[in-house]
Amino acid sequence: MVKLADVARLAGVSMATASRALSDHPHVAPATRARVLAAAERLSYVISPEASRLAGGSTGRIAVVTPHISRWFFGALLEGLEAVLREADLDVLIYHVGDAADRSAFFQRLPARRKADAVVVLGMPVAEPERDRLGLMGVHIVAAGGQAESFPFVAIDDLAAGRQAVGHLLYLGHRRIGMIAAVDPAQPGWPVSPGRTRAYHEAHADAGIPVDPRLIVEIPWGGNGGAGAMAELLSLREPPTAVYAHSDEVALGAMRTLRRAGLRVPQDVSVVGIDDHPLAGLTDLTTVAQPVREQGTRAGQMVLALLGGENVTDGVIVPTRLVVRGSTGPPRESR
Amino acid sequence: MVKLADVARLAGVSMATASRALSDHPHVAPATRARVLAAAERLSYVISPEASRLAGGSTGRIAVVTPHISRWFFGALLEGLEAVLREADLDVLIYHVGDAADRSAFFQRLPARRKADAVVVLGMPVAEPERDRLGLMGVHIVAAGGQAESFPFVAIDDLAAGRQAVGHLLYLGHRRIGMIAAVDPAQPGWPVSPGRTRAYHEAHADAGIPVDPRLIVEIPWGGNGGAGAMAELLSLREPPTAVYAHSDEVALGAMRTLRRAGLRVPQDVSVVGIDDHPLAGLTDLTTVAQPVREQGTRAGQMVLALLGGENVTDGVIVPTRLVVRGSTGPPRESR
Repeated sequence: MVKLADVARLAGVSMATASRALSDHPHVAPATRARVLAAAERLSYVISPEASRLAGGSTGRIAVVTPHISRWFFGALLEGLEAVLREADLDVLIYHVGDAADRSAFFQRLPARRKADAVVVLGMPVAEPERDRLGLMGVHIVAAGGQAESFPFVAIDDLAAGRQAVGHLLYLGHRRIGMIAAVDPAQPGWPVSPGRTRAYHEAHADAGIPVDPRLIVEIPWGGNGGAGAMAELLSLREPPTAVYAHSDEVALGAMRTLRRAGLRVPQDVSVVGIDDHPLAGLTDLTTVAQPVREQGTRAGQMVLALLGGENVTDGVIVPTRLVVRGSTGPPRESR
Repeated sequence: MVKLADVARLAGVSMATASRALSDHPHVAPATRARVLAAAERLSYVISPEASRLAGGSTGRIAVVTPHISRWFFGALLEGLEAVLREADLDVLIYHVGDAADRSAFFQRLPARRKADAVVVLGMPVAEPERDRLGLMGVHIVAAGGQAESFPFVAIDDLAAGRQAVGHLLYLGHRRIGMIAAVDPAQPGWPVSPGRTRAYHEAHADAGIPVDPRLIVEIPWGGNGGAGAMAELLSLREPPTAVYAHSDEVALGAMRTLRRAGLRVPQDVSVVGIDDHPLAGLTDLTTVAQPVREQGTRAGQMVLALLGGENVTDGVIVPTRLVVRGSTGPPRESR
């Protein structure tokens, strides 16, 4: 098989120059490029993606892979990320991998390959085989809005956030706390966050309160899921006095069921979410706020550092904080 | 000055081929490209961006210009658009023009120039000088989620949507109807929709009800704006019995003020919005639904038609429909 070195030798240029010429790198003199192309043609050299990539010919583009576009969380991540990259004159390519089929197609075909200098994965778990495929792209990879094992990330500590939410309910005196755990229908098999579930169990263990498994309901992510889960919790012989939802949108669904059942929030049932969605303030929802736009910003800065040749391997954890609004209060019995 | 025709003649190829070779078009044989580059080099031909563009050397990319990313409306438009373009193997570049400075910088620098085959403008009015600058890009332009005078668009009929909302309140018997008109702070000087304001006046005129100008409040777009506007309306000597908000998020802000004031919706005050935001269903908000994702999809199909050489000049209006939920009812007096 003809090698890049053969082409370089015939064209009388260095391997780096040959590689740049073949990868359409802008800083190659037309005459040189012509000579290299002629040599490649004469030797029937097949340009491999790897050779092109190794040339370091930068595309000036960053690919963003996201399971959702219209959901606030993903949009806010993208907004923070785009601002930093735009400032650095980098373009942002969007790859929406909506459902399992999309996702599988993306990782099989790797359409971002050779089109971007780095890939940022938004709020999405990356399984091992997918990670290996991403590795094949030979570009920098950063995760935002979710933790990653094999590449740098910016995320919250889900366990800590969940403990802030459940701890608040325990502090108010609640002993029967329901949990609505959300699973993203687009990412089957992955809970939205194992940390948010673990927080519930750890907080109960620390408080010496046994967990009643009937108080845990797992539903597809979203308001309708939350509404259905709340109905299920209300159908228990002894319903919870408070509910911990894995996200604000799920919590808002639970609140609709409570309203329709004629129950008052928080007098009859307290509700707490996680996120601080812009509408949480409008609906007086107590929640654990996470800085979403900032996670996008920090991920963008990581990309710039990596492109600048810095060695970035660690994850960054951004802090969350409890925001107490009108949806939580002490349980009725203790008044 | 050396012309493209000279290069083509020397290389022994057609002008189209010469142009393609110089613009790094993928479907040019390496030997041909080498010959053209050598000729260009010999004649000291300067590759002009226009020549490159005129070559029809497609970039395989579509630029999307949007004033917001994390707001549901813009995210849903983008989601529909991206799906159609991705299906056609086109990449999507995002340009976020957040505030007036960003916007002005974008239209001055036109960073998408030469990087995309078409530009889609999302939910954003385009002023005449900006339109002229866009014209300079020499690419196809489509607007989604807003009407445009000089290029094809997909949008709702704001006047019709507003008449559905106000007509519903009039039908229920309301005679003192407040209007909360939202102005996008990122787009100073532009009302969210003149059509939605006109609808209020036309519906009143048709019903023979004089408009009380104190019932019209203009605020910056968003929930907090809606909350403040509702407080202003409640401070009137004779507050409205119903409120028409230009968007659901504004309506949700108005509902928070009503809740805090101890007023019941709809028994004391009815509220109607426009959009059918995913959270409208969770908050029992009556609204006028618009198909947002579909507007993105249709805009994507327009782009494909234009790239395929079809002549697309018209705008497409997608229908809206009233969705009656729990936030509207007859006024108290008439019960």
